Amino acid sequence: MSSLLVDNIGELVTNVAGTGEGGPLGIRRRAAVLVEQGEVAWIGPAADAPAADRRVDAGGGAVLPGFVDSHAHLVFAGDRATEFAARMAGQPYTGGGIRTTVGATRAASDGELRTTVRRLHAEALRQGTTTIEIKSGYGLTVADEARSLRIAAEVSEETTFLGAHVVPAEYADRPDEYVGLVCGPMLTAAAPYARWVDVFCERGAFDADHARAILACGQALGLGVRVHANQLGPGPGVRLGVELGAASVDHCTHLTDADIDALASTRFDCMCPDGGHTTTVATLLPGAEFSTRSPYPDARRLLDAGVTVALATDCNPGSSYTSSMPFCIALAVREMRMTPAEAVWAATAGGAQALRRDDIGVLRPGARADLIVLDAPSHLHLAYRPGVPLIRQVLHNGVPQ
Amino acid sequence: MSSLLVDNIGELVTNVAGTGEGGPLGIRRRAAVLVEQGEVAWIGPAADAPAADRRVDAGGGAVLPGFVDSHAHLVFAGDRATEFAARMAGQPYTGGGIRTTVGATRAASDGELRTTVRRLHAEALRQGTTTIEIKSGYGLTVADEARSLRIAAEVSEETTFLGAHVVPAEYADRPDEYVGLVCGPMLTAAAPYARWVDVFCERGAFDADHARAILACGQALGLGVRVHANQLGPGPGVRLGVELGAASVDHCTHLTDADIDALASTRFDCMCPDGGHTTTVATLLPGAEFSTRSPYPDARRLLDAGVTVALATDCNPGSSYTSSMPFCIALAVREMRMTPAEAVWAATAGGAQALRRDDIGVLRPGARADLIVLDAPSHLHLAYRPGVPLIRQVLHNGVPQ
Ligand SMILES: [Zn+2]
Ligand SMILES: [Zn+2]
Repeated sequence: MSSLLVDNIGELVTNVAGTGEGGPLGIRRRAAVLVEQGEVAWIGPAADAPAADRRVDAGGGAVLPGFVDSHAHLVFAGDRATEFAARMAGQPYTGGGIRTTVGATRAASDGELRTTVRRLHAEALRQGTTTIEIKSGYGLTVADEARSLRIAAEVSEETTFLGAHVVPAEYADRPDEYVGLVCGPMLTAAAPYARWVDVFCERGAFDADHARAILACGQALGLGVRVHANQLGPGPGVRLGVELGAASVDHCTHLTDADIDALASTRFDCMCPDGGHTTTVATLLPGAEFSTRSPYPDARRLLDAGVTVALATDCNPGSSYTSSMPFCIALAVREMRMTPAEAVWAATAGGAQALRRDDIGVLRPGARADLIVLDAPSHLHLAYRPGVPLIRQVLHNGVPQ
Repeated sequence: MSSLLVDNIGELVTNVAGTGEGGPLGIRRRAAVLVEQGEVAWIGPAADAPAADRRVDAGGGAVLPGFVDSHAHLVFAGDRATEFAARMAGQPYTGGGIRTTVGATRAASDGELRTTVRRLHAEALRQGTTTIEIKSGYGLTVADEARSLRIAAEVSEETTFLGAHVVPAEYADRPDEYVGLVCGPMLTAAAPYARWVDVFCERGAFDADHARAILACGQALGLGVRVHANQLGPGPGVRLGVELGAASVDHCTHLTDADIDALASTRFDCMCPDGGHTTTVATLLPGAEFSTRSPYPDARRLLDAGVTVALATDCNPGSSYTSSMPFCIALAVREMRMTPAEAVWAATAGGAQALRRDDIGVLRPGARADLIVLDAPSHLHLAYRPGVPLIRQVLHNGVPQ
């Protein structure tokens, strides 16, 4: 049994509230982390550290839980750089370009899709993302959705069926029929490879009734619920998510008071020193607002109402082709008035809660040894040094990458 | 004599207008680049490439001139992460924090300053910056300004004397006397290590008369002129720069019509296919607006008036602690409505013009072999994939880094 000790840590962000400075970040100083069998085995004062077979010298850098990116679309073919440039020159984002990617994805071989998924997965890991949720949604046929999830499941345990991303062109005048296909053979074929079911509930995509039907079918097959909600305008997505007990409603760019109240009503008091969280997390995706030049969600309003907030990349070739969680943290601080501590928590523990996981996004004995060493002494630098690749080292399942 | 061939290039951005697609970017396809003795020796169709001793396979990635970051403050000690976090929580940026860094810089040893300069220089190089201008300005004594520039000159030929960054605390009620010190012994001691003289011409720093005196003294010693101008409010900086024939006026956040006219009046028609440039470049530093949560400069207004625009990082521990030119490109597109092509040009050829250099920021025979290979097929991806480290390989003076 091989053990590994991480020491010479500038600041250790544990996300165990009450164990140190920094409120929910639970920052410990002069601490060391012992890793055994892919898990955190011990955390304590560096001076008391047990002997270990190997050592990772953090060089005075901050150590954090690896980022948990709970919203990404990595299974696709082609890119839409030209559409992006046109949008930046003034064309609005309508979501219509999704069909471009659907065409390219259907035409791609398994090997091409696998290469893209693995390239982006590796790119995210280099940037400190040790868990990444991956959605289907560019296949939109029974076979293409199933193979998308099969390929996603090769690299991540957090896979999400998003057959209801848009109504594909061939069903444009028969949306009910497409919903029937999704609820029936598509879900049946996809569910074995999926942990979650998701719907793009938005004007121009799926309305509340269609979304409810699809999500309920997914639940009946044992999948957890997440919803693309309230991105392009106000709508029923957030409240539908709460109604169905969704783990997360994602985007949340256009919220009414009723939406906020619905989210806040899912708050429960837990035994943890944080004092409580909401069953349904609001996952904010500021990369999408950045790359579509849209107004940002109001994170402060959610936080002040007691709603648990996560940050994720929404990595996809249309509206947010970033895989960088540090970039999302910097945006959250600049544009959404989150504090650096709130943003770092949301990108780690928040993402974990959005995936209903307690073994990641946190550093304590028994947690997965997913951790990152920064080329900077403090978590503040993730917002303070925007755009700079600050991830010096990544440990995933205890293994230095 | 060792030669090196860069081939398998997805798109070659030469910045030689009229030689390909993309207007001023001069994009060539199926091209290869031969490097000899640190210079570009040949560019032509890959099929006609001469034999070479070594090969760099661009793997289908785009190849661009290395970034030219014409505005950075790398000689300092300490950081101001806590001030940054306070500012993000609502405190305005007044420039007052510069004195914090001055205290830390004076107290630092040569070795400490050298370590920071080299760390940030290496960090920038990894991100594709092959030329970086480095200013003094955190010493503000004769000895500390001279040593700051001596240390800067160890890593860059583009060094700038900024003894007139702020009036140091000990001269707070005697600004005339400080200007006398700057113009006399400080410039004399610093000039041997500097190529440029710069002044922070802003309310609370140096007014037009003081700035003019200092810049004229620098000119008399053979230094070129650049000005920190119109960052925090309207002011005389831009027009002063034009009056003195400055290579660049930097920030340009608050411009009047008269400022724009003054810059546009420096336009000259050159023989190059671009059709003309302005003698005085407007260097925009969107990292500063990002990190101080300020409104961005109006790049379109400058471009539409025919003013040559450069992009730089302003890397410094107070108002913009980024060293990432790709991040500045992404901001320029998102926030300043530059096209991706304009932003890439401004971050390469624009920076070179702001430093009055014709051997960098461009790829043509005789130019310095400073070039970068992207982990992406097109220059568009620098804006399309914000925050993602896309620099796969850097050649500096023809040497793979
Ligand atoms: Zn999405
Ligand atoms: Zn500056």
